[in-house]
Amino acid sequence: MALYGAQVTDTGRGYFETTLLAKEFLLRSSGIFHGGVIAALADSAGGYAAGTLHADDASFLTIEFKVNFLNQAKGDKLIARADVIKGGKTITVARVDIFVESNGAEKLVATALVTLIKEKK
Amino acid sequence: MALYGAQVTDTGRGYFETTLLAKEFLLRSSGIFHGGVIAALADSAGGYAAGTLHADDASFLTIEFKVNFLNQAKGDKLIARADVIKGGKTITVARVDIFVESNGAEKLVATALVTLIKEKK
Amino acid sequence: MALYGAQVTDTGRGYFETTLLAKEFLLRSSGIFHGGVIAALADSAGGYAAGTLHADDASFLTIEFKVNFLNQAKGDKLIARADVIKGGKTITVARVDIFVESNGAEKLVATALVTLIKEKK
Amino acid sequence: MALYGAQVTDTGRGYFETTLLAKEFLLRSSGIFHGGVIAALADSAGGYAAGTLHADDASFLTIEFKVNFLNQAKGDKLIARADVIKGGKTITVARVDIFVESNGAEKLVATALVTLIKEKK
Repeated sequence: MALYGAQVTDTGRGYFETTLLAKEFLLRSSGIFHGGVIAALADSAGGYAAGTLHADDASFLTIEFKVNFLNQAKGDKLIARADVIKGGKTITVARVDIFVESNGAEKLVATALVTLIKEKK
Repeated sequence: MALYGAQVTDTGRGYFETTLLAKEFLLRSSGIFHGGVIAALADSAGGYAAGTLHADDASFLTIEFKVNFLNQAKGDKLIARADVIKGGKTITVARVDIFVESNGAEKLVATALVTLIKEKK
Repeated sequence: MALYGAQVTDTGRGYFETTLLAKEFLLRSSGIFHGGVIAALADSAGGYAAGTLHADDASFLTIEFKVNFLNQAKGDKLIARADVIKGGKTITVARVDIFVESNGAEKLVATALVTLIKEKK
Repeated sequence: MALYGAQVTDTGRGYFETTLLAKEFLLRSSGIFHGGVIAALADSAGGYAAGTLHADDASFLTIEFKVNFLNQAKGDKLIARADVIKGGKTITVARVDIFVESNGAEKLVATALVTLIKEKK
């Protein structure tokens, strides 16, 4: 997500939060964040959340993810909050909620489930 | 997908194919297409496939999609082929297979199911 | 779920909880709840949660659902807790967590996202 | 699916077909197959399709699945056709189409993607 300018805004054991400021090229003509950007941010946050549970010799590949778009993502920034709900030996699953912030208020705009597989580097 | 430079390479009733050439900013450091780009291409192709079934006064919003990443997406171009498998009054569902082409040979790298809702413009 | 003997154990506005006692025919030979039973319970709970937001003249059809199996579902009872995370005019989305209870302790065994469409009766 | 009386009606390398006759307890009051039954049949068929690619010393667990319900499942029998679209060392993915047969004619009523993990017995 470095391309888009996403920043790490919080992290913990099994948790990762990333924030993306609205920029013109991420928005549809109607002024809302692209679904593709929301999905990519969710996927990325899920992967980083998985990484918080492991030492540096592990990397994660997304096997699959699913995202539901719940509300129009119109606002100043997009915040993805990823929680690991299963951290297994092989498979990790993260739940990611994506919020839009507008004038200081947050609204849930999407939710995703991301399934990852751990790979030895 | 105009941002990424995706092009329409085939279309028909309930069918839409779009192709994206490998460019540096779409690739991970290991030289493969980003999962986020694959997902966005799939979502986009599903929406356009839905659009082939309707006159110009309809637009489609993605309610949800799910994508499975099957093989490493290393190659010269990414091709998404979307088929409408349900074109209802309210709900449209598209199945999207995503291939990578390398030295003229295609490989299936991902598959997606995209659920859309029709909106009157 | 009446077939399986599931019971309503809690309900509220946008919330529904149902509990299913272990019975022999719901279990695999290894003594754990079938994935199919878990999925059906999740789907069902999502639909009932949607129903709590509406008067009696509405019914809901599941458009799609996705379930992740997180841990082995071995225990005395299965509890599905469904929360509506979007209650729209046409589309409702519920998040359902499924727990197994064993010796009084709960464990999350699966999570699901259920997308429903409202139909006038 | 033995409980429901599903039968194997075709199988091959990476392919599995199972058929379920309509019985009263599988049907909703409106006379259509339950979504839960369709989902369980799809999950089950995906697992058996995975099994066709491996010797007897492997078993498969469903990590997750997603199903889209496309049309009303009213008919005499339900047929699930599962194709393995990725048969990896660890992860197997099956695509399952579910048809209803009524008066000799088939109709696609649901489609599913099933992700499985191989376990040594």
